[in-house]
Amino acid sequence: MAAVNDNYLKLQGSYLFQTVARKVREFEGSHPDVRLIKLGIGDVTQPVAPAVISALHRAVDEMGQAATFRGYAPDLGYDFLRAAIAENDYKKRGISIAEDEIFVSDGAKSDCSNIQEIFAQDSLVAVCDPVYPVYVDSNVMAGRAGDFDGDRRLYDRLVYMPCTEANGFVPDFPRVKPDLIYLCFPNNPTGVAITRDQLQAWVDYALKIGAVILYDAAYEAYISADSLPHSIFECSGAEDCAIEFRSFSKNAGFTGLRLGFTVIPKKLKLNGQSVHDLWARRHGTKYNGAPYIVQRAGEAVYSPEGSQQIQEQIAVYMKNAVYLKTALKDAGYTVYGGENSPYIWLKTPGGMSSWDFFDLLLNRLGVVGTPGSGFGPSGEGFFRLTAFGTYENSQEAIGRIRSLEL
Amino acid sequence: MAAVNDNYLKLQGSYLFQTVARKVREFEGSHPDVRLIKLGIGDVTQPVAPAVISALHRAVDEMGQAATFRGYAPDLGYDFLRAAIAENDYKKRGISIAEDEIFVSDGAKSDCSNIQEIFAQDSLVAVCDPVYPVYVDSNVMAGRAGDFDGDRRLYDRLVYMPCTEANGFVPDFPRVKPDLIYLCFPNNPTGVAITRDQLQAWVDYALKIGAVILYDAAYEAYISADSLPHSIFECSGAEDCAIEFRSFSKNAGFTGLRLGFTVIPKKLKLNGQSVHDLWARRHGTKYNGAPYIVQRAGEAVYSPEGSQQIQEQIAVYMKNAVYLKTALKDAGYTVYGGENSPYIWLKTPGGMSSWDFFDLLLNRLGVVGTPGSGFGPSGEGFFRLTAFGTYENSQEAIGRIRSLEL
Repeated sequence: MAAVNDNYLKLQGSYLFQTVARKVREFEGSHPDVRLIKLGIGDVTQPVAPAVISALHRAVDEMGQAATFRGYAPDLGYDFLRAAIAENDYKKRGISIAEDEIFVSDGAKSDCSNIQEIFAQDSLVAVCDPVYPVYVDSNVMAGRAGDFDGDRRLYDRLVYMPCTEANGFVPDFPRVKPDLIYLCFPNNPTGVAITRDQLQAWVDYALKIGAVILYDAAYEAYISADSLPHSIFECSGAEDCAIEFRSFSKNAGFTGLRLGFTVIPKKLKLNGQSVHDLWARRHGTKYNGAPYIVQRAGEAVYSPEGSQQIQEQIAVYMKNAVYLKTALKDAGYTVYGGENSPYIWLKTPGGMSSWDFFDLLLNRLGVVGTPGSGFGPSGEGFFRLTAFGTYENSQEAIGRIRSLEL
Repeated sequence: MAAVNDNYLKLQGSYLFQTVARKVREFEGSHPDVRLIKLGIGDVTQPVAPAVISALHRAVDEMGQAATFRGYAPDLGYDFLRAAIAENDYKKRGISIAEDEIFVSDGAKSDCSNIQEIFAQDSLVAVCDPVYPVYVDSNVMAGRAGDFDGDRRLYDRLVYMPCTEANGFVPDFPRVKPDLIYLCFPNNPTGVAITRDQLQAWVDYALKIGAVILYDAAYEAYISADSLPHSIFECSGAEDCAIEFRSFSKNAGFTGLRLGFTVIPKKLKLNGQSVHDLWARRHGTKYNGAPYIVQRAGEAVYSPEGSQQIQEQIAVYMKNAVYLKTALKDAGYTVYGGENSPYIWLKTPGGMSSWDFFDLLLNRLGVVGTPGSGFGPSGEGFFRLTAFGTYENSQEAIGRIRSLEL
């Protein structure tokens, strides 16, 4: 008799953003006249840059001619894209990453959720709390997270690393020694960045205890301060203990085009076994590469025009971030993030719960954010807003929020 | 201490097509003057159809304008594409599949390899022998296949169902009762199709023993005979025991665009648990949807012009298939497949091993095929050629093969 993977039955409710989307749909259904301001899901709003659009058109034309048609892509990505990544994201920052240490994919979400497969079933996994739910749920599905403790709102075989006001939202080393450590900086959801010294301390810690750091750098493009690392491979020794995930979604507006990549140094070995080789095998067996046309689009992001256009897009979002942060502070809120990051992490007023504040903003103001407790128990009492809207909508949201009596 | 998933270490050699590719690269390196005829990997050669190219250009333009830009796609696929699939692939054949039973993805390879995740870890898995390696390897990686028995060339916890000349390459029911049964018809690699009655018998068997059939119908577009089912859901009761995988790669030349879908009826339940819900949860958690532009391309495949153009492409490949089959028979070979399928499955001459015949064709004739034993022990003594080349290359390949003394 066939049976389901009962680890899936341990998952709590639906995926956070699906719940938010459902509540929004229900509200829209019953309030068709209200213009909602959506600063919830971290989706971008600016169109794809002209240089990227041109590259897409060119690649589409190639697919329509026998002489230039491309079938199956190389498993690990086209050389032209891997070369552009190695040069621009790494070499220009003084980091030595070889082209064949870069694995092109359909996005960081896929890679972040699939990466756990290549590690031992009994790996002890550490996550930040609050956390991007994908790290947790993918390990729950794999049976690595144990059971959900309904009182503590935690899985009993995960190591949670609270990120709080007290530690400036950068976690302390856990008391038990994990095997795998998920870190994401600039952080989703708190919007807080990590300094190079702080990240170096994590690399040193991982090397000392023999752990692997799974480093999600999807938001690195928002970093402007020199003291902040864009890549974990800026830290000494990281090539022996770290994997890095990158995305084209948030720097170049590819949420609907789907492109990302993962860097696994060939030096990273566990008990003599190359982690790079395992991931290559997974890619070759379970994946058939990102579309050629999308890989050409990714290449265009690094062209002089593309690079310039994308900087302008990021500047638009960062203008929103600064505006939201300043205005919310002025209105009496305690606010984190919003610098070197597109996320604003605000304390709910009067100790209100995160979901109560979500419902209040949705139902009374028509403003959609994301409840902090959806990212983990230490997110309770916090609320995430994104800077990915338009400036006009950011202003409108602030206007509406100001109307609340704190 | 972090450790790798040691199930990966049980994988045999590299993925079959990577090995073929490596041998071809080596030959090309040492014989730069030989024009190779590649009838190995099942990649298409005709460019993407004009109607699809136009749809891509339109969608690309939409992505470049704020008013029509699309960010994250719906997890399970855009409604416009799911509606086109439900209407054209199912309703028009008298099959009732709801739009929300269709999950759009980046291809059947991803879905075929990921589907095992939602089933119990101790599921007993049955596969055809020879078999598309992805079914086997994804279960090896998950620890479900046991250890490799080097003498028998089999994993000791998989149920192998030999597909041989004796049974017409349609497997008999296995002696032990499996929980999951992978079937692929028209078959890769043998090129043999299954009749509606034969498939109904498999559905009845699965219902009787409580198994789930994982049905790969990636090649259904090559069926011309009325007695052959395009979908397992043509069989009565299949909605209670079957999942179907479809691809746009082989019917519409999307190998480089990446699009496929999986159908899971809501009626399919195991111990009261909806399999559809589990797959939806996996999709939502570990995947972010196929690119909008590629989903618009998929929609165009069903347009009147697109449909017409794609029929013409399939006719080109089927002309190759008929030619290859007839010419090889004339040359004294025993040949299967090549009707209702783009694959030719030929017996190696004089009892030669599959890899010896591969090396002979590559090194003496400059013709690339795929050794049957790479698909499993019952594939030994066979060799796969694809009809996806050009007619001229098919003719050239036959000319070279004819020069061999049988």
